[in-house]
Amino acid sequence: MSTLFLRTLREDPADAEVPSHKLLVRAGYVRRVAPGLYSWLPLGYRVLRNVERVVREEMDAIGAQEVHFPALLPKEPYEATGRWTEYGDSLFRLKDRKQADYLLGPTHEELLTLMVKGEYSSYRDYPVILYQIQNKYRDEERPRAGILRGREFVMKDAYSFDLDDEGLKHSYELHRDAYIRIFDRLGLEYHIVSAMSGAMGGSASEEFLAPSPAGEDTYVRCLESGYAANVEAVTTPAPPARAREGLPEARVHHTPDTPTIETLVDFLNAAGLGRTFTAADTLKNVMVKTRQPGSDEWQLLAVGVPGDREVDPKRLEAALAPLEVALLEEADFAANPWLVKGYIGPKALAENGVKYLVDPRIVSGTAWVTGADRLDHHVVDLVCGRDFTPDGTVEAAEVREGDPSPDGAGPLVMARGIEIGHIFQLGRKYADAAQLDALGPDGKPVRITMGSYGIGVSRAVAAVAEQRHDEYGLVWPREIAPADVHVVIAGKDEAVREGAERISTELDAAGVRVILDDRNASPGVKFADAELIGVPTILVVGRGLAKGVVEVKDRASGERTEIAVDAVVNHLAELCRS
Amino acid sequence: MSTLFLRTLREDPADAEVPSHKLLVRAGYVRRVAPGLYSWLPLGYRVLRNVERVVREEMDAIGAQEVHFPALLPKEPYEATGRWTEYGDSLFRLKDRKQADYLLGPTHEELLTLMVKGEYSSYRDYPVILYQIQNKYRDEERPRAGILRGREFVMKDAYSFDLDDEGLKHSYELHRDAYIRIFDRLGLEYHIVSAMSGAMGGSASEEFLAPSPAGEDTYVRCLESGYAANVEAVTTPAPPARAREGLPEARVHHTPDTPTIETLVDFLNAAGLGRTFTAADTLKNVMVKTRQPGSDEWQLLAVGVPGDREVDPKRLEAALAPLEVALLEEADFAANPWLVKGYIGPKALAENGVKYLVDPRIVSGTAWVTGADRLDHHVVDLVCGRDFTPDGTVEAAEVREGDPSPDGAGPLVMARGIEIGHIFQLGRKYADAAQLDALGPDGKPVRITMGSYGIGVSRAVAAVAEQRHDEYGLVWPREIAPADVHVVIAGKDEAVREGAERISTELDAAGVRVILDDRNASPGVKFADAELIGVPTILVVGRGLAKGVVEVKDRASGERTEIAVDAVVNHLAELCRS
Repeated sequence: MSTLFLRTLREDPADAEVPSHKLLVRAGYVRRVAPGLYSWLPLGYRVLRNVERVVREEMDAIGAQEVHFPALLPKEPYEATGRWTEYGDSLFRLKDRKQADYLLGPTHEELLTLMVKGEYSSYRDYPVILYQIQNKYRDEERPRAGILRGREFVMKDAYSFDLDDEGLKHSYELHRDAYIRIFDRLGLEYHIVSAMSGAMGGSASEEFLAPSPAGEDTYVRCLESGYAANVEAVTTPAPPARAREGLPEARVHHTPDTPTIETLVDFLNAAGLGRTFTAADTLKNVMVKTRQPGSDEWQLLAVGVPGDREVDPKRLEAALAPLEVALLEEADFAANPWLVKGYIGPKALAENGVKYLVDPRIVSGTAWVTGADRLDHHVVDLVCGRDFTPDGTVEAAEVREGDPSPDGAGPLVMARGIEIGHIFQLGRKYADAAQLDALGPDGKPVRITMGSYGIGVSRAVAAVAEQRHDEYGLVWPREIAPADVHVVIAGKDEAVREGAERISTELDAAGVRVILDDRNASPGVKFADAELIGVPTILVVGRGLAKGVVEVKDRASGERTEIAVDAVVNHLAELCRS
Repeated sequence: MSTLFLRTLREDPADAEVPSHKLLVRAGYVRRVAPGLYSWLPLGYRVLRNVERVVREEMDAIGAQEVHFPALLPKEPYEATGRWTEYGDSLFRLKDRKQADYLLGPTHEELLTLMVKGEYSSYRDYPVILYQIQNKYRDEERPRAGILRGREFVMKDAYSFDLDDEGLKHSYELHRDAYIRIFDRLGLEYHIVSAMSGAMGGSASEEFLAPSPAGEDTYVRCLESGYAANVEAVTTPAPPARAREGLPEARVHHTPDTPTIETLVDFLNAAGLGRTFTAADTLKNVMVKTRQPGSDEWQLLAVGVPGDREVDPKRLEAALAPLEVALLEEADFAANPWLVKGYIGPKALAENGVKYLVDPRIVSGTAWVTGADRLDHHVVDLVCGRDFTPDGTVEAAEVREGDPSPDGAGPLVMARGIEIGHIFQLGRKYADAAQLDALGPDGKPVRITMGSYGIGVSRAVAAVAEQRHDEYGLVWPREIAPADVHVVIAGKDEAVREGAERISTELDAAGVRVILDDRNASPGVKFADAELIGVPTILVVGRGLAKGVVEVKDRASGERTEIAVDAVVNHLAELCRS
């Protein structure tokens, strides 16, 4: 510690909000260079490299082969798949001295596809899994929480190449199992949740989420069945269609002063219609516009959800991807005067040829209160399948704690998590763009099917710190800790110093990684730093040495044990092996 | 080999000129992505990581501590030291979504200086050495030779921070010794040569150059004394000043039709002046212009060299750095009509106040034939110190094989080399820019002095390949080879295959890194690939197995030995340990 490049801080950094950010800065693991750009100090870099080692070992164990691409990449392959445009502002773009376009790689699907196409040609070459551990770049709109969401970050990205869907499924399962082993070894608590694949394209996809209040991903779980899904991926069980016969006729009502769903419901309940209405009986139609990426042509789209729920923009965007979605502007309303703000109903939508997608709860035979396309007017008992026919359903309504699980097993609970891993069955999107074929045994080309699999390596460091800390500091699992044992010299006695140094040397020789606090500082300062730094075992060499004992403290449990000096090296070596 | 992601090529790639580039591509180690941007395939990445390991071990051994900065960096620190401008077109610059300026780091002096300033304050904290192994970026005008000169490359950059010059010298020696160990372990032949520090600033500096025809650096050595220097750093021994008394007077001669030094000398020798002239008796004055980086104001500069030598632009630039140097354009001559092209002499330079720097050979008392500032006229017997007085000397004349060594020990021989390492005593340039001080024991601030030390990690892979290959392929030293033993199954016999697989498994268990060629290919193809890939030991399991023997071939020497099957695992394990 007297020579370690380290300065611990007593105060939280001003710009830090979440525990991992505060503690990793305070304990001298990382430092901010610019928004979303962090440096790793010696202790932090050891942890990062330990995580890399775990990831590498488990990837190698499933037969994945490590390659390494440049981070600086030419535009062309990304243009061929459309991602040069799709990534929008989150892609770092630059020009070289010859004004050629380049980017800093966010992920490498295109390049890996081209590489495999360049090397392999026969079905006998497949399957193959390639991976790299590398700096990735995304120009986040709001980089936050230190290394939790940075603009340059370390990612393990893997890509599988298979001849058929069954092969892809097998490669996917290999990764899923490897990820389970990796995150277990990192000491992370996590849930595997169904996910939408978003801009990546493809079909099946799961996220590994580490539950944490600092997480940006909201997900749901059914405690009864174990079902778990990213909020974007939650599907809404549709109630059975109802009989349309015998339902009252739709009637338009004058409903003045009902600017909100709440006031509308109150008005109807006061209107003496012989029934009690709730917000869930109303049908709210939200207007958006969509366009193909790179296109200039926006299309109107109406989204109908029960009035007791908001449209969740993230769910709507995920459901419509890769289409881009935007809210209407005044100019759009001006161009479509038939849109009566606050009173939009299915009738005008149908008459004006606007696509109308509704929540799955809006099934045939259900009756709704909705806009009558006329200021201060609503229609009651508008029956789906009789009075209007949506163009399809869309998963856009917000998901709430207590909603039924799609598997019917019970209610959903909500949680926040950090995305630490993501596995995709991409299918043939990238292989199609690159025309990646293998020559089959019959001499005919077989289009390759791909998977892509990511782990946020630097983010995993933050996720572990989020889950494993206490009021005194970080609490690393041994597998990725910057050291095994933190030796504190507690006393100015020369014999104590010599004893501590001797034990440290012996521990080192026994393969135990040691941090020795040999500074001229008070025991209080040293203890506080040891707790803050969070090495799993703290060894205090102090006054007890004269009686032949030292103190071993378990950082996580706080448990202290006195151990004979002669036995301590073997004891700790044993502890580190187990 | 049946599952390894590898395709070897029989033909040299069309764009490759140097052996390392051809062989690393043919043997499936690297692939081109864009100009100066290469991907590492599995075998190549293993070699790269082995080099990294060697570098890391030796850096750790001198007490250097590993940190890691982003490659994407904000402009401001580089603006503070002027390097944002000085780097010119070779810096990759980009803007983020908020239009803030960023760069891709070419080296990290600025950031490390700021980091140390942020963490350390007292003299007790020093000295400290920090290093990183990281992607670096330079937008080379002519990226060439594969990974030998790429635009994204892996570099080990280290920085020392000391309280005084003696400390810096010690840190510098530590690095010098570590570099010697590193390059020895990498199996490289190299010379340590004196160098100019160029754009880096600072004083003492040495380069580690691996001799190779593919190298871009020209350097000289004196075989008698061991003196070695980059051509830019060669100093010219100045002859002693001569007595000016009794020398003939300067006389202007009409010298028509003498557009070259050669024709001038012929003319004079035919003119009956009673002496024989050579080109070395003439003084050639070359006009350039210089400016401070970032400035728009050019200044004229005249450079005088003996007429038998050209001005070496690299030496001139190095000698004048950090000034920028350019040749005169027509407009410059038009603006200075007194400049008579081809006949420029010291007289007009002095009259027009142009700075005049001369080669060190032009000492007081030497007489020269030079321009008379008038078309078709030269002056003879113009004596330095009598008829003209230069403003100083400059090391701009070309260096030639056979020139005397500056240490007087003998003639210089010339060589080409690859710059694999560079060590600098930077001094206080960056500490001054960042105001990096330590509080001294007397409470007064002490300005820190720095060193910076680089190793081209990816370039070292190419340098080893340049030096260690033959007509059949690469010849790796064991320390960085992608494997220890390349096992070739030579035969279709099931017993041969089983034997080879069993030996491979046993080798693996003994800690020997094995590549097993289990492909259904002819022995000829397999042998050719083994030689091309260049693993140090090739083990051939073939027909001999029935008689209980296998063949061990040393890749470098070509020596073959028959070894009993029962003994081969121990034999090879022993070989790999030694």
